[in-house]
Amino acid sequence: MLRFVVFAVVLLGVCGCANADAAPVAELTSPDGRIRVSVEAGEAGAFYRVDFRGEPLVARSRLGLMFKAVYGFDRNLEIAEVETAERDTTWEQPWGERRTVRDHHREMAVTLRATEGPKRSLIVRFRAFDDGIGFRYELGEQSGIDAVEIIDELTEFALPQDYQSWSIPARGWNRYEYLYDTGPSSDVHSAHTPITFKAPSGAHLSIHEAALVNYAGMSLIQKRPNTFKAHLAPWSDGVLVRTKAPFVTPWRTLQIGDAATDLLNSSLILNLNEPNALGDVSWVEPGKYVGIWWAMHIRDRSWGNDTIHGATTSETIRYMDFAAKYGFKGVLVEGWNIGWDGDWYNNGALFDFTRPYDDFDIAAIAAHGRKVGVRLIGHHETSGDVSNYEAQLEDALDFYATHDVAQIKTGYVADGGRIERIDDHGIRKYEWHDGQFMVDHHLRVVTEAAKRQISINPHEPVKDTGLRRTYPNWIAREGARGSEYDAWGIPPNPPEHTAILPYTRMLSGPMDYTPGIFDLRPNERPPLRADMPRNDPRSRLETTLAKQLALYVVLYSPIQMVADLPENYEARPEAFQFIVDVPTDWEESIAVAGEIGDYVAFARKERGGDDWYLGALTDEDARSLTLDLDFLDGGQNYEAQIYRDGEGAHFDTNPYPLVVETRLVRQGDALTLDLAPGGGTAIRFKAVSVLPAVAGK
Amino acid sequence: MLRFVVFAVVLLGVCGCANADAAPVAELTSPDGRIRVSVEAGEAGAFYRVDFRGEPLVARSRLGLMFKAVYGFDRNLEIAEVETAERDTTWEQPWGERRTVRDHHREMAVTLRATEGPKRSLIVRFRAFDDGIGFRYELGEQSGIDAVEIIDELTEFALPQDYQSWSIPARGWNRYEYLYDTGPSSDVHSAHTPITFKAPSGAHLSIHEAALVNYAGMSLIQKRPNTFKAHLAPWSDGVLVRTKAPFVTPWRTLQIGDAATDLLNSSLILNLNEPNALGDVSWVEPGKYVGIWWAMHIRDRSWGNDTIHGATTSETIRYMDFAAKYGFKGVLVEGWNIGWDGDWYNNGALFDFTRPYDDFDIAAIAAHGRKVGVRLIGHHETSGDVSNYEAQLEDALDFYATHDVAQIKTGYVADGGRIERIDDHGIRKYEWHDGQFMVDHHLRVVTEAAKRQISINPHEPVKDTGLRRTYPNWIAREGARGSEYDAWGIPPNPPEHTAILPYTRMLSGPMDYTPGIFDLRPNERPPLRADMPRNDPRSRLETTLAKQLALYVVLYSPIQMVADLPENYEARPEAFQFIVDVPTDWEESIAVAGEIGDYVAFARKERGGDDWYLGALTDEDARSLTLDLDFLDGGQNYEAQIYRDGEGAHFDTNPYPLVVETRLVRQGDALTLDLAPGGGTAIRFKAVSVLPAVAGK
Repeated sequence: MLRFVVFAVVLLGVCGCANADAAPVAELTSPDGRIRVSVEAGEAGAFYRVDFRGEPLVARSRLGLMFKAVYGFDRNLEIAEVETAERDTTWEQPWGERRTVRDHHREMAVTLRATEGPKRSLIVRFRAFDDGIGFRYELGEQSGIDAVEIIDELTEFALPQDYQSWSIPARGWNRYEYLYDTGPSSDVHSAHTPITFKAPSGAHLSIHEAALVNYAGMSLIQKRPNTFKAHLAPWSDGVLVRTKAPFVTPWRTLQIGDAATDLLNSSLILNLNEPNALGDVSWVEPGKYVGIWWAMHIRDRSWGNDTIHGATTSETIRYMDFAAKYGFKGVLVEGWNIGWDGDWYNNGALFDFTRPYDDFDIAAIAAHGRKVGVRLIGHHETSGDVSNYEAQLEDALDFYATHDVAQIKTGYVADGGRIERIDDHGIRKYEWHDGQFMVDHHLRVVTEAAKRQISINPHEPVKDTGLRRTYPNWIAREGARGSEYDAWGIPPNPPEHTAILPYTRMLSGPMDYTPGIFDLRPNERPPLRADMPRNDPRSRLETTLAKQLALYVVLYSPIQMVADLPENYEARPEAFQFIVDVPTDWEESIAVAGEIGDYVAFARKERGGDDWYLGALTDEDARSLTLDLDFLDGGQNYEAQIYRDGEGAHFDTNPYPLVVETRLVRQGDALTLDLAPGGGTAIRFKAVSVLPAVAGK
Repeated sequence: MLRFVVFAVVLLGVCGCANADAAPVAELTSPDGRIRVSVEAGEAGAFYRVDFRGEPLVARSRLGLMFKAVYGFDRNLEIAEVETAERDTTWEQPWGERRTVRDHHREMAVTLRATEGPKRSLIVRFRAFDDGIGFRYELGEQSGIDAVEIIDELTEFALPQDYQSWSIPARGWNRYEYLYDTGPSSDVHSAHTPITFKAPSGAHLSIHEAALVNYAGMSLIQKRPNTFKAHLAPWSDGVLVRTKAPFVTPWRTLQIGDAATDLLNSSLILNLNEPNALGDVSWVEPGKYVGIWWAMHIRDRSWGNDTIHGATTSETIRYMDFAAKYGFKGVLVEGWNIGWDGDWYNNGALFDFTRPYDDFDIAAIAAHGRKVGVRLIGHHETSGDVSNYEAQLEDALDFYATHDVAQIKTGYVADGGRIERIDDHGIRKYEWHDGQFMVDHHLRVVTEAAKRQISINPHEPVKDTGLRRTYPNWIAREGARGSEYDAWGIPPNPPEHTAILPYTRMLSGPMDYTPGIFDLRPNERPPLRADMPRNDPRSRLETTLAKQLALYVVLYSPIQMVADLPENYEARPEAFQFIVDVPTDWEESIAVAGEIGDYVAFARKERGGDDWYLGALTDEDARSLTLDLDFLDGGQNYEAQIYRDGEGAHFDTNPYPLVVETRLVRQGDALTLDLAPGGGTAIRFKAVSVLPAVAGK
């Protein structure tokens, strides 16, 4: 619904120059006035700054672009024109953390004109929301500029002082799969986005980007102390982006809030993305799934076609029956196709995406799936050989579509910077997972999949920048250290990891974290065979059992894996019930409490129902949280089905004690959650009718 | 003198394959057999490893090169041919740490042939010395390959485990001017070379390069834990190196030794450089110099032409007279030319290298210099605007030559990656201080200067790779944190800095460290004028007075600055005597004791004389060193003039106590040096004749 729109074209000199400085300044404030962006330009170049609550949040920071063979926008610039607008609309997501999203922003499009060299101009468009700002570059049509090769983006983010920071290093061999570094911002050498900060004033800030298309992914590199510069992932030959005028860059985003939970309740990234381009997407189905996957990570099965091959017809049917029994929608099967023998992570060229192994009868599996109402979930591991994958892509998608597959997990297991492609000369080149080549590749896969009504969940992906709004079949992705690291990682994910992810990785979009492991010490079991020892027992789940349940509410994804082996669930039916019940699609979501790296609590209302759910978790410290249940609907009783850490529970020494209890609650009640070290609480608030005689707390 | 030369061409299969592995292996050992290099090639690519004392020192590490539009050398390679040789020669330096250098090595040229794609081959030439190895790539003439753009060098240095490491980060804003990080090698994210390691076995290793011409400088980046990859400084458009076949790359060098001092006594880098190309270089004069320089850093004077301009005719003459009085050869004057007003570090385009300020009468200064036997030392600060400098270079050199200038200090003050050049389209581009553009630029300056019999000393330079052998007028350079950081750096150089430099930066070549400050607390003085406050008093010299003297022997340079204000020297004549005496050119140099980061002691014999000198220094810990004076010449008496820390001396609380004493010593005597915290000892061993009646210890 469009509330009102105001357009104003402001000429230089009448631009709202509140600053007494000689350099002309263009300013923009958020609708509530608490965030202000100021832009200036002159001989030294163009700069912006951001103030929040009347204080500097981001200090004077450079803007600009440089090209290889065309004059760029570096120094000697002036503000030629400023155009403003205000928009207040709402829109609906076909699936998501919430159904309805409000987009209320003020916009300022600043035209920078060069005062040296050939006549040229560049627009920097800013949008200010109450929960942050975004800005992007727009190079319009202009004489002399057609095809361009971008060799530098000059964007900086200069912090006025040390902020506490949470980040992962960029351009490392392990892509995004690092534990978060916590410490002063001046210690951050390089970082992927989202990168999150807390200022001494208590203000929170997270830097990221939105709508990454036709461009290279941006990481940050610290230039001068506390000045971070955009560092785009280059092509193999060193050029950053190949494009042509007119073009727009992704939005550089700064999510801003008073409290840590303000970051979690922001829809800024989605609001800066283009609307749905796919039309009817009713075929995109959120849901829970199981998989022949964890068994390989904990060395019960193998990917390759040997005597303990995981991907067999009978195993898949067994998992399908288990899924059907509990209402889960799909079964992921890895290791089904030719190419997995030996060290498959070096075998990229050998993968065949239309030829299963002999022991995987895909037609029979699809038939059984139709019978029990469970789909096969596809798997396309590339080991980074993207040329091989792209050559087979259309046939591979058609093949799966033939067998009722509606969702595919893709994979790009390869060191950072080692994605292989064969160029036009036939020469092998190596690219970055977040370079322009892969940005384009992922969109190619998503759009081709959409033609077959298939959703895509890439692992080892490019980071999420909100494109699920434009392509709602881009259903989830990995792009951080997930639970597989608990199977073999040294160290495994420590307790604080899932208390940091919501404030960093999860700001970018859903994550296929693959939670819900019930055997928390899988490597302490004796090996199944002498020549296949277990992983190091230091690899384990550093959570309590209750926290595994809480993850389903805390780490949002429209597709959630029920990741453990079926037998481990059936051994703990009282805990499993929560997973059986918890939805994956929501009417509304509210982060109700939390601090970065310490704890978090989310409340979410199921879509198409009346129930609410809550998930809370803590790091290695025990915590007692008293929450007001003011998110519940008024005039409604709820039976709170509480799954909490039992007496003496501790992630390290005693992770299993779990208490399941119920209470009647109403909106406005207070509830105290006692979280064990590395623990959590999961609650289903089941809407109930209660006869007066039985009412009570 | 050529001892013997053996050539052998060895065909594949008869190549000394000592390894039982299927992949053919080429092996090379050092003359003493203690270092072994093994090379293999196959489907995965080409690899080398280095063993020392029978144990792995560098594990299996990748080799290779990749080009933009031409097939490179990555995977699918085989060893086609191996050619070996052994050489044992000596050669003379016109100036240096020693006169005579022995070059005894065994060489192996391995021809790698591609087994995929177009017919092509690449030679990897290895040389093994007793003090380490070097290897380089050589692409010969071959069809289909002419002009090439190198987009990746695949060279790796894989350590078999964590080594203790000393390094500075690469690609930072402050170029090479960082304090050294000490810690496990797996913590090193990126590093410039030299980078130095100590293995758990006690073996020492330093990685660097030799003969950096027609190529980009190599820094290292840690790919997988403890695997370091070559990271060449790219051109602004992302290409690493532009060259044409046939070409050779710089030598990648691994200096190896049992003890830390073995690294200091190595001539590996020089031995891998080409012989002198300039012919008669008797006009290159080592010596000591003073300068109108420190006064600006401690805020007594200014570079710009204001009321306290340092670079005036009268000041220069005053410094010339001071130099003449004590036998120093030159006076450096900074701030003499148009362009220094305001923030000169952003003023690159304004510098004029042939127009002095009005108060600098260069002709009068040159005349006075001729009278007193002291030359003006030139100064060309560019502030990174290299196009401006190159446009004026020849005129600037001619201008200086006209005024008897025989030595120029050049400067490139600009953030890392912000060297400015105007490209062929007239577009401003930014380059790295160690990219191919600057490698070429420095050589241009050195060769143009040689035509005018001028020597060059660049500050903010490209790192030293031994090219002083080929161009003996490339007399010194900065390229690390020098004593100027004690004037205004926060922190200043800590005591351990000069105990690390010898084992890192100094392995690459001489450094213009500019030592010899006698007022160790310059910022505790009251300001000269109210509007020019002193720097933060935390900036100070964190050494004792004796250590300042020791630096003249410890940190080798053919040109040593006598850096402090004349009045501070004349206030301490007993200490100053050592600086007056100490030479800057040597017949021989021997590192006699030391451990990285802790302490070091060098003994050097003056060239053209009989005296020896010794310099020893320590970090923040006091140390007692007992040294055998076995380096002294036999059959000779020496009066040891010892300048040592006095009772209670301490770099932090009591830096000035100095004792000057003499003793008679002979070869083989032992001498115990007591070094205070942050202290040192400097000794002149004056060769004397002693009549029997007076002989004694």
